Amino acid sequence: MINKVLIANRGEIAVRIIRACKELNIETVAIFSEADRESLHVQIADEAYCVGPILSKDSYLNKTNIMSVAKLTDCDAIHPGYGFLSENADFAELCEECNVTFIGPSADSISRMGTKDVARETMREAGVPIVPGSDGIIANEEEGKRVANEIGYPVIIKATAGGGGKGIRVARNEEDLVQGIRVTQNEAETAFGNPGVYLEKFIEDFRHVEIQVLADKHGNTVHLGERDCSVQRRLQKLIEETPSPAIDETIRAKMGNAAVKAAQAVDYVGAGTIEFIFDQKDSSFYFMEMNTRIQVEHPVTEMVTGIDLIKQQILVANGEPISFNQEDIQFNGWSIECRVNAENPAKDFMPSAGKVAMYLPPGGFGVRVDSAAYTGWNIPPYYDSMIAKLIVHGSTREEAMDKMNRALDEFVIEGIHSTIPFHKRMMNHPVFRDGDFNTKFLETYQVMED
Amino acid sequence: MINKVLIANRGEIAVRIIRACKELNIETVAIFSEADRESLHVQIADEAYCVGPILSKDSYLNKTNIMSVAKLTDCDAIHPGYGFLSENADFAELCEECNVTFIGPSADSISRMGTKDVARETMREAGVPIVPGSDGIIANEEEGKRVANEIGYPVIIKATAGGGGKGIRVARNEEDLVQGIRVTQNEAETAFGNPGVYLEKFIEDFRHVEIQVLADKHGNTVHLGERDCSVQRRLQKLIEETPSPAIDETIRAKMGNAAVKAAQAVDYVGAGTIEFIFDQKDSSFYFMEMNTRIQVEHPVTEMVTGIDLIKQQILVANGEPISFNQEDIQFNGWSIECRVNAENPAKDFMPSAGKVAMYLPPGGFGVRVDSAAYTGWNIPPYYDSMIAKLIVHGSTREEAMDKMNRALDEFVIEGIHSTIPFHKRMMNHPVFRDGDFNTKFLETYQVMED
Repeated sequence: MINKVLIANRGEIAVRIIRACKELNIETVAIFSEADRESLHVQIADEAYCVGPILSKDSYLNKTNIMSVAKLTDCDAIHPGYGFLSENADFAELCEECNVTFIGPSADSISRMGTKDVARETMREAGVPIVPGSDGIIANEEEGKRVANEIGYPVIIKATAGGGGKGIRVARNEEDLVQGIRVTQNEAETAFGNPGVYLEKFIEDFRHVEIQVLADKHGNTVHLGERDCSVQRRLQKLIEETPSPAIDETIRAKMGNAAVKAAQAVDYVGAGTIEFIFDQKDSSFYFMEMNTRIQVEHPVTEMVTGIDLIKQQILVANGEPISFNQEDIQFNGWSIECRVNAENPAKDFMPSAGKVAMYLPPGGFGVRVDSAAYTGWNIPPYYDSMIAKLIVHGSTREEAMDKMNRALDEFVIEGIHSTIPFHKRMMNHPVFRDGDFNTKFLETYQVMED
Repeated sequence: MINKVLIANRGEIAVRIIRACKELNIETVAIFSEADRESLHVQIADEAYCVGPILSKDSYLNKTNIMSVAKLTDCDAIHPGYGFLSENADFAELCEECNVTFIGPSADSISRMGTKDVARETMREAGVPIVPGSDGIIANEEEGKRVANEIGYPVIIKATAGGGGKGIRVARNEEDLVQGIRVTQNEAETAFGNPGVYLEKFIEDFRHVEIQVLADKHGNTVHLGERDCSVQRRLQKLIEETPSPAIDETIRAKMGNAAVKAAQAVDYVGAGTIEFIFDQKDSSFYFMEMNTRIQVEHPVTEMVTGIDLIKQQILVANGEPISFNQEDIQFNGWSIECRVNAENPAKDFMPSAGKVAMYLPPGGFGVRVDSAAYTGWNIPPYYDSMIAKLIVHGSTREEAMDKMNRALDEFVIEGIHSTIPFHKRMMNHPVFRDGDFNTKFLETYQVMED
């Protein structure tokens, strides 16, 4: 049995994991950078050690130092949280070599999902819907035209070696396409030394809907329903909820089955998330990517299923079979999460680090706060700006929104700016309340000015 | 529809009620004594008015001032919380006269349950089990002996006019009884001018188990399961939980039916609680009394049923029928509440008012805090010492206890003493963990020294 866990993370997720360990009577070892000496996760762990200076690459990403602490403190497992080393196959492998349980999937599963074209091909073979497109690289313009006509415009031209926003071009008609293929090929040749391009249907207005999966080492894989994360700003999720206002039981079952197939295709073990593009026009959905770790928004799933995902991760890593079947999983009510960031929403979400002069989280029935903040805490400007997750549960979406509204009203964070005013506007925004929106919500509406 | 509610209370229950109102989009008016000007309930209500000086009788019990505020601020309803005016039939009547909805039962229901002998007689007629005893006042020693033999020793001799611990005597055999009847009659004659005494079986080792009921104005009455409140100190509840470790489904159904009958017998409307003496030896139970108001420990019921009792009180007072049937009520998992009092458990629970130098409530999955405390708050020494309720929910009793343990560990309250150390010991006490105890727990075990 896992007796002592090193938590290779900081902030609210480190606190979240320490809480789960304590409830399972597992000892905890926290790590911290020089900037995080006064952090809450350091204070509530059984032991805590500095692993390096401020920069993440020297501390929270410092594999050697972290493993040294784990070995010196006799930890038998490491929980990576999210971000940092959580999807680092090398680190998962290092853990294996050092005989320390990595609380997450195998290095192989991480790799197979981490490489975009490999993942797309794996999903295709497993029968998981992928965005319609060419069968790999297109041979010439004629094939491009044929494929584009088959899948319908607009299409997206992607350089196979591309990345970071380069080697990508949208075509809305054949003229665009012919020109776009040439330009993208040339650009890719120059930038990456590989002119290969492929085509995918360009889905413009979609919802981000993802499925939580959980798999053990005994071949059992279940899904825990969806999360709708369509409220995003520059690809950063701000509000998440479950169920999705756009999903019914039939689609949930279909998407859930696809997610289970996706996880099984890479022999997945642990908690993971399959992200889908969901097209509201015809209720079709397509594999976007898999996050091979716990996600920020996991609490909304816990609130409606009653299942503690961090405890499940630990139990599964310990070799225990999942103690429930797919049919045992019940979805009760509605849950919404707002990410409270140290940012000023009135000034284009400008970061706002500094000292928290007063901190009082809201409480009461159906209100959950996952945070590492406290009165007097100095928020370091070097890491993620998220300082608290406010999660509510209500019997209906309307009750959950009204509860979130009053909880936001009560939430006291003084001394810095936070995204609370943004979330308050969202909870009263007619389009959000209506539930009929997609990932372009924040491009379409000026929430802070509406 | 109720549009604006005056909350005739203070502290955590005022905060709790304001939260429910806000979630229902109902305006709120707080009241406060001169000692509570800086209280959280004052800060989070839409409006707040001082109703008098420090002493409760001049402020929180000042019916005229409270009603004046209600009328001047156009409130259409008053929620009395618990304590203070919550079981004051005169105040309920005043509300009726002033055309303000009293969020609670009728003055008549309050009266019929508030008078001990009337309640006992009403319950007998309704077929609710009462403690076996004489049929009213005993005529002479011979009848006393006959009744005592029938019901079995020990018995308790009670003066019908007694009260406040006077005119009560336990008899463990016939000799005790004969002498006890004489002494009690003489004492009662002298003290109350009425020598009448009656007999009841004296149940020594019992659990305090109570049933939550909810009734609307349309004749629907349901019960929401039991709460076990056996951990008491000098009749003050300290820890409550649901389900009771001593109750199974059959007894829950029997007790639930008895509670529904009890409520119906006094035409009860609203949320109320029937307290029972539960005898673990033979699983028998007897009516103790009915609390015709919301109770401190109501959150544990909310945690396992998902039903918001304060919202239900408001909806029912508004004339709406209960929207679910008895069969719809599901009990999920286990919930425990610890009352965090500003008292020093190491010094015989001596009150410990003063300034809260630092306050950080615990958070995370399955943890709920109902409190009016904050960093910098000066706890006034004049009222109830309870400053927070820590409520947890787990899938099993063991998980709930482990969760409570870690939440207590995290709970930061600096500057004053609190009962947190006592609760930590309780959560690790083998007898508490075992679940096999009765109301004598704290007389039997020296928890703070064990």
